[in-house]
Amino acid sequence: MKTRQRIILSILLVNLFFAAFALGQSRREINFPDILGYKTLKCDLHMHTVFSDGLVWPSVRVDEAWREGLDVISITDHIEYQPHKKDIPTNHNRPYYVALSRAREKNILLIKGTEITRETPPGHFNAIFLRDVNSLDTEDLFDVMKAADKQNAFVFWNHPGWKPEHKGWFDTHTTLYENKWMHGIEVVNGGSYYPEAHEWCLEKNLTMMSNSDIHQPATLLETSPGNHRSMTLVFAREQTTEAVKEALVKGRTTVWFKDQLIGRKKFLNAIFKESVEIGRPYNKYRDSIWVEIKNSSDIDIDLERAGTLGPRQLTLAANATTILRTGIGAKPEDAPAQIELSYIARNFLIAPDKGLPVTLNIRLK
Amino acid sequence: MKTRQRIILSILLVNLFFAAFALGQSRREINFPDILGYKTLKCDLHMHTVFSDGLVWPSVRVDEAWREGLDVISITDHIEYQPHKKDIPTNHNRPYYVALSRAREKNILLIKGTEITRETPPGHFNAIFLRDVNSLDTEDLFDVMKAADKQNAFVFWNHPGWKPEHKGWFDTHTTLYENKWMHGIEVVNGGSYYPEAHEWCLEKNLTMMSNSDIHQPATLLETSPGNHRSMTLVFAREQTTEAVKEALVKGRTTVWFKDQLIGRKKFLNAIFKESVEIGRPYNKYRDSIWVEIKNSSDIDIDLERAGTLGPRQLTLAANATTILRTGIGAKPEDAPAQIELSYIARNFLIAPDKGLPVTLNIRLK
Amino acid sequence: MKTRQRIILSILLVNLFFAAFALGQSRREINFPDILGYKTLKCDLHMHTVFSDGLVWPSVRVDEAWREGLDVISITDHIEYQPHKKDIPTNHNRPYYVALSRAREKNILLIKGTEITRETPPGHFNAIFLRDVNSLDTEDLFDVMKAADKQNAFVFWNHPGWKPEHKGWFDTHTTLYENKWMHGIEVVNGGSYYPEAHEWCLEKNLTMMSNSDIHQPATLLETSPGNHRSMTLVFAREQTTEAVKEALVKGRTTVWFKDQLIGRKKFLNAIFKESVEIGRPYNKYRDSIWVEIKNSSDIDIDLERAGTLGPRQLTLAANATTILRTGIGAKPEDAPAQIELSYIARNFLIAPDKGLPVTLNIRLK
Amino acid sequence: MKTRQRIILSILLVNLFFAAFALGQSRREINFPDILGYKTLKCDLHMHTVFSDGLVWPSVRVDEAWREGLDVISITDHIEYQPHKKDIPTNHNRPYYVALSRAREKNILLIKGTEITRETPPGHFNAIFLRDVNSLDTEDLFDVMKAADKQNAFVFWNHPGWKPEHKGWFDTHTTLYENKWMHGIEVVNGGSYYPEAHEWCLEKNLTMMSNSDIHQPATLLETSPGNHRSMTLVFAREQTTEAVKEALVKGRTTVWFKDQLIGRKKFLNAIFKESVEIGRPYNKYRDSIWVEIKNSSDIDIDLERAGTLGPRQLTLAANATTILRTGIGAKPEDAPAQIELSYIARNFLIAPDKGLPVTLNIRLK
Repeated sequence: MKTRQRIILSILLVNLFFAAFALGQSRREINFPDILGYKTLKCDLHMHTVFSDGLVWPSVRVDEAWREGLDVISITDHIEYQPHKKDIPTNHNRPYYVALSRAREKNILLIKGTEITRETPPGHFNAIFLRDVNSLDTEDLFDVMKAADKQNAFVFWNHPGWKPEHKGWFDTHTTLYENKWMHGIEVVNGGSYYPEAHEWCLEKNLTMMSNSDIHQPATLLETSPGNHRSMTLVFAREQTTEAVKEALVKGRTTVWFKDQLIGRKKFLNAIFKESVEIGRPYNKYRDSIWVEIKNSSDIDIDLERAGTLGPRQLTLAANATTILRTGIGAKPEDAPAQIELSYIARNFLIAPDKGLPVTLNIRLK
Repeated sequence: MKTRQRIILSILLVNLFFAAFALGQSRREINFPDILGYKTLKCDLHMHTVFSDGLVWPSVRVDEAWREGLDVISITDHIEYQPHKKDIPTNHNRPYYVALSRAREKNILLIKGTEITRETPPGHFNAIFLRDVNSLDTEDLFDVMKAADKQNAFVFWNHPGWKPEHKGWFDTHTTLYENKWMHGIEVVNGGSYYPEAHEWCLEKNLTMMSNSDIHQPATLLETSPGNHRSMTLVFAREQTTEAVKEALVKGRTTVWFKDQLIGRKKFLNAIFKESVEIGRPYNKYRDSIWVEIKNSSDIDIDLERAGTLGPRQLTLAANATTILRTGIGAKPEDAPAQIELSYIARNFLIAPDKGLPVTLNIRLK
Repeated sequence: MKTRQRIILSILLVNLFFAAFALGQSRREINFPDILGYKTLKCDLHMHTVFSDGLVWPSVRVDEAWREGLDVISITDHIEYQPHKKDIPTNHNRPYYVALSRAREKNILLIKGTEITRETPPGHFNAIFLRDVNSLDTEDLFDVMKAADKQNAFVFWNHPGWKPEHKGWFDTHTTLYENKWMHGIEVVNGGSYYPEAHEWCLEKNLTMMSNSDIHQPATLLETSPGNHRSMTLVFAREQTTEAVKEALVKGRTTVWFKDQLIGRKKFLNAIFKESVEIGRPYNKYRDSIWVEIKNSSDIDIDLERAGTLGPRQLTLAANATTILRTGIGAKPEDAPAQIELSYIARNFLIAPDKGLPVTLNIRLK
Repeated sequence: MKTRQRIILSILLVNLFFAAFALGQSRREINFPDILGYKTLKCDLHMHTVFSDGLVWPSVRVDEAWREGLDVISITDHIEYQPHKKDIPTNHNRPYYVALSRAREKNILLIKGTEITRETPPGHFNAIFLRDVNSLDTEDLFDVMKAADKQNAFVFWNHPGWKPEHKGWFDTHTTLYENKWMHGIEVVNGGSYYPEAHEWCLEKNLTMMSNSDIHQPATLLETSPGNHRSMTLVFAREQTTEAVKEALVKGRTTVWFKDQLIGRKKFLNAIFKESVEIGRPYNKYRDSIWVEIKNSSDIDIDLERAGTLGPRQLTLAANATTILRTGIGAKPEDAPAQIELSYIARNFLIAPDKGLPVTLNIRLK
């Protein structure tokens, strides 16, 4: 009886968590540390609205982004593909202006952009940091790229593995690359990861991008624990258009895709170091010393032993504490004061199928 | 097509959040700031196992506590009520020892305790920090209390409003209080809050307690966002038996009950100040300056305007950022550099039905 | 070890439930029985798109409706309020045609409608079953109503308690009612229930309506267990425009609002009878006979004892089985073969604050 | 404003779904059709309590089973492995009697059983339908089996692939099989499926079993949509000990494991036929006729095209309606009145890696 009443009352409050997000009153902050003196901005630079083939009004993209913890977005409606043209006369700059006042209220940095849409190959490209989208509405792809270049746009190749029958790096891509008209590639688009694009970015020093390419309304799934939209972490001096552009040009990004981070070694390493904190040893007078390891980031870190010490597998759950039984006792008294456990963080990808080597330094005394 | 495949893949990962908790591999950390130089320990000092009328083995209480982010627990099986006695011969010290090695592995501080179980009035009492529970197994209540006192136990009155027909402060309670045999009261037990107990704690300087009194196995509900078990926040020098006892004796506690914190003004005030951070103003050149307010605690803070500035109602959602439209523009140039908004935090109870007065200082320039 | 692996594997499948809905591949069927020879159609006859002040493309409303288990919808964009007019030139018939092919594919009956938008009083009205919306775009309200009447529209008054300062039944409403230009009232709009509208429907024999009035994209919350959008259950001969219209004109509706059904006694009674099934008695040779009661509808039925037998409170959870301890033993042998328990179904409202009287007939032998 | 208030109110009710289950007041019914004139009983015949190495009191197993929709359980504590013996003196019949009155109240059929625990090989075996467990507490395995046989027990081999280094069919198994002392095998235990055991059951006509082997308290995960514990569907005349035994002896079972049904062709075929209902064609006057397919069971049915008609992949989501675009138009008028689509139900396993062939008969006119 007593127990029942007790439980019933406490459960009435359970789902207020989701309520606040559904109402658009709350923002879920995404937890990744700032690194190397930069702010870690959460960016989605590829999305659609009713102004091309998307299904929502531009302000909805701002509300969704805010709710999901993003800092920077770009609405990139297709120039060439406008299925709603009959009802919405074409003006490629409109989605930006329609969304702008909402973006200002929600402190979301909105970047003017567009998607240049060609057959595969060469495929689709986003140009962002534009002043005027309409001037890119010309037939020849190289003319478009020149127009983008004239506006100092940042241009990246979208979903390069989209159509399996036509995928690959073609002459057009070489031309774009050699003219410095293409600065990055989507290593991830929505739910797809392209290992070949990952390689190209490493080989050719292109910026790694990850975006949602969302067309539908976002659901609350993306706001729920353990889930998130595909996004680019951009390491920028501050949350301004100039700083984001500088960071993108310099290639200071990391891709957050499902349960993986994909990026250059120095960035992944810095994220690991800032996220993982090892506590003081406890339960010392037993056969084995134990420690608590806190992971304050939003990603479960999946470790596989690379040395001889420590458990073979170890998952440091996101925003949680994991217990590690070192297997080493405190006696004899000349036991080491510290041990180093070598691991591979399998879901911190520094190249396709290649995890980040990390070390856990554990004080025993 | 593309969108579909994308979404389907990303959803496969959704519920890994709950998976880790179900497996007992992860601990949900509870977010409340350390205050006033003390660590904020999350404590549940009232729970049962198969050794009295509970339904789980003692080690389960440790696993549940760890999973839910608790730091300190006491298993307090009834001395006088042992419905499983036919199968489990009575030894009141056993639940503690059965659970101890698991507690050591999980870094949960386990305190030896028991529930002294009398008719209402005077009702039930927990004695904790005991050396030997069996010595409390005597008939006369005052003899029990003397035995507890001899062991320097900390004793509190449980669920004082449990049986509405017999509730109230009786002579026995006065005797216990005057002999300093009773040091605290459960202001909250499971899903019930007792305003009269809240008043008694304030009037008589008794320590405010909140516990689960759990008998059933815990479900994962308590580990899910927005939900938690009733617990006592204890402000202690460190996570040791001595430090927790010192804090309880000195009354350094706050009750976390559903969406409310209940406690003395100085503690609630410190929690508010350490949890709430006001960002820099933005969107300045519009009709109204805006700010972001971050609440890094696990409690939604429910504010009601007490002054003339700011919105009438404002909820600072837990672990989230809330946007505040100040309603004040940056022009004319002689606008104030800062404003102070007066609010009542309605769910930070400094007395029954009485919220904590707080001030939001907002820089405008 | 064994247990861990076991659990981890089985959890990977958990959230596929939501996945299918997020993908728009699955429809959650809503469980209410067909009654009195009619099909129970789930209808939402008030919603908005980018063609007035809504935020989604019309086809999204069809997808959401299908996912949530609706059978019939009407997109009712405002005639007079078109905040996106600058980007979407006005043609009031467009949202219907834009959504139509999707509706046909998903077997959703789409009804052409609109919202007539006037100051309060008299407020807003929906006209549905129109042939041409544009012909209602005239200044005088009575002219609009005549135009609707000419098309044999069904007209209902929306959210009559929306603006508390102007609410009430005014002369205009009397004129509409007496001219038979207004045939129903929203007893529920979104999250609001209007008891006075409930009374008016009973007194004046108007059709009770309940609609979402959704402007934002729907989230998945509405598709999750225990939640649903506000809707009208329409008891119609079949899922056709003519049959739905006939049912609305005849007043054969019931309102589903949160955890309540609101409607005329005969409909609520029929739903109760078709939803609740009492099993055979079991555990007979004990002190009390028990029975299982199955509720195959989507609504928890909240019963309060009106007679002398049975528990005081009884909740028949939705799509679940509830156990009832009758409190009556099988002995002596001349015990009754059947008992009747009288209850009030408190959340089946036959008038404001007035629950439906029901009887549970329980066979004991 | 209006929208916000609306949403906030409706969300307060969301999680009452879980509330009722957490309270143990509601039972989630599992949806599988009765087939071939038998009732489809949901059975878990392998679980542990504090009386061996489990962690809950026996009555908890009944409460969990009821909440999760089971009809029949057997508590099968180890005879030989009793780690809590120091606190709970051994009497192997006790867990049954401790749980019995709760089982009677909840209408759960409780079968007296035990787990016979030997090194691998030959491994562990459950004997159920016992009168006296203590008489099986002897050293020699064959003596134990004779004692079980004397009580007419039904005996099955547990988790035959548990220890990969010792797995396989050994001489002891041949002896047990030839003496008819072993009547079934766990094709599934918890989260593990054993294809070799699946083969053995088919070859040697043994009964296919699936059980949870639960030791920990059950969480609410098993009660949530899309998740379930591993269980055996038993096709029995009625929910009585005799009828369940007769069905097990005759091999009338099917295994429900994650998103798969595993069993003999005739049972899987009957479940498919009774679960899937094809609606009338609609949208007829378009280029393609469409139909709705309802799956009223709790399992998503994963179809792969085996013929030339219909989509290549088709998932009939559990308790939901799926839309099928036939790709065949209604014209010319001599179009066929019906088509048959051949599929393989890939997750209805009639042998390891071998799905059930099924046909969808679709009326076009």
